[in-house]
Amino acid sequence: MVPSDGGPFVFVADLAAPVLADEDYHHLAKARRLRSGDPLVLGDGVGRWVAARFANQQPELAGDVVFQPRPTLAIAVGFALVKGSKPELAVQKLTELGVDQIRPFVAARSVVRWDGARSATGQARLERVAREAAMQSRRPWLPEICPVASFGEVSGQPGACRADRCGGPPSLAFPLILTGPEGGWDSDELAADVPVIGLSEGVLRAETAAIAAGVVLAAMRAGLVLPAG
Amino acid sequence: MVPSDGGPFVFVADLAAPVLADEDYHHLAKARRLRSGDPLVLGDGVGRWVAARFANQQPELAGDVVFQPRPTLAIAVGFALVKGSKPELAVQKLTELGVDQIRPFVAARSVVRWDGARSATGQARLERVAREAAMQSRRPWLPEICPVASFGEVSGQPGACRADRCGGPPSLAFPLILTGPEGGWDSDELAADVPVIGLSEGVLRAETAAIAAGVVLAAMRAGLVLPAG
Repeated sequence: MVPSDGGPFVFVADLAAPVLADEDYHHLAKARRLRSGDPLVLGDGVGRWVAARFANQQPELAGDVVFQPRPTLAIAVGFALVKGSKPELAVQKLTELGVDQIRPFVAARSVVRWDGARSATGQARLERVAREAAMQSRRPWLPEICPVASFGEVSGQPGACRADRCGGPPSLAFPLILTGPEGGWDSDELAADVPVIGLSEGVLRAETAAIAAGVVLAAMRAGLVLPAG
Repeated sequence: MVPSDGGPFVFVADLAAPVLADEDYHHLAKARRLRSGDPLVLGDGVGRWVAARFANQQPELAGDVVFQPRPTLAIAVGFALVKGSKPELAVQKLTELGVDQIRPFVAARSVVRWDGARSATGQARLERVAREAAMQSRRPWLPEICPVASFGEVSGQPGACRADRCGGPPSLAFPLILTGPEGGWDSDELAADVPVIGLSEGVLRAETAAIAAGVVLAAMRAGLVLPAG
């Protein structure tokens, strides 16, 4: 975790020769009202960060680069694409929770399809959401946002499990939880040969199920809760 | 849980002589396009529901009233008031998760204050959000939205605990989790004589911490996870 007392946390492409992206520079100068010499922390999104001082668009380095390795056990959530801004909300919350990999997929009952150019712009939008959320929650590692895939592709990944009402305890033995669309899983998805885990009693909205999956995996990885039974 | 195959789930004031609220009637007739005779399920928000058929604003009963008792163990989340629509998002998700009681409070570092008339309208708004979320997630019990209180009042409730980064495992022995504002807890709140529990590694936004508290309590109550250690 990037320490909270060093000023705003901002990603740059190159820690050795840092240049703030236009939107980050304007945010810091206008909304956050940073002045020359004010502290900030620069990160590269892949585990490294360094203390710096604000100075126009090229901050001055003010310390040594620190590296925080990725957690040994990666946790991941795959969610069925749904309408509107719900995928963004899920990605924002999963990033804050420290989920390492996010795998959007098209379920049989996904109302939304992302194909061709739409898939690329959708993925780029989710990556922007993740970048903002990681800066705000001071996460030195950006989550990996995978390209949109099919249910067959995500359920074929090692460690995948499917979330459903009737499921058993979640476990870090299955650290990729797949959550379904509003309309529920279809018969082929129900028949897929992956473990089924539960997240709560009752039905959750699609984006809530994705967030709940991230919460449960993060709490297990932090050693705060264990699978029941 | 209200069965999912009986048509839309709608709350009415009196199950014996049901009258749909204007907004619900218009939603069903216009957005959902229900016609006379289409099935729906009516609930009273305190555990009872009944099958019915759509017919203008006064549905016809089509079955016997079913009662689902409240879960024996109530789970509750208290969150520090924050700006914008974040309290609504927290209430929506906590309702879907089946949290029984929601206690907004003013922390020392809450940027927002709700006092006098603002407190009443704020509470009414959160109640509307809870009602919609309970209908959509087919929950026969509405959560109780408590009036805005002070940290001293909520932390003095039986079973209260405070969520913080350094906290230990959450537990159903402390089924009221209090989550703090963006700026963190102040020294008096840190010194309060309540257990401290953790929800994840790292810092969560205020509304994310509230949702995470609901997820962890709901998963424990469903028997899916246990406190570690």
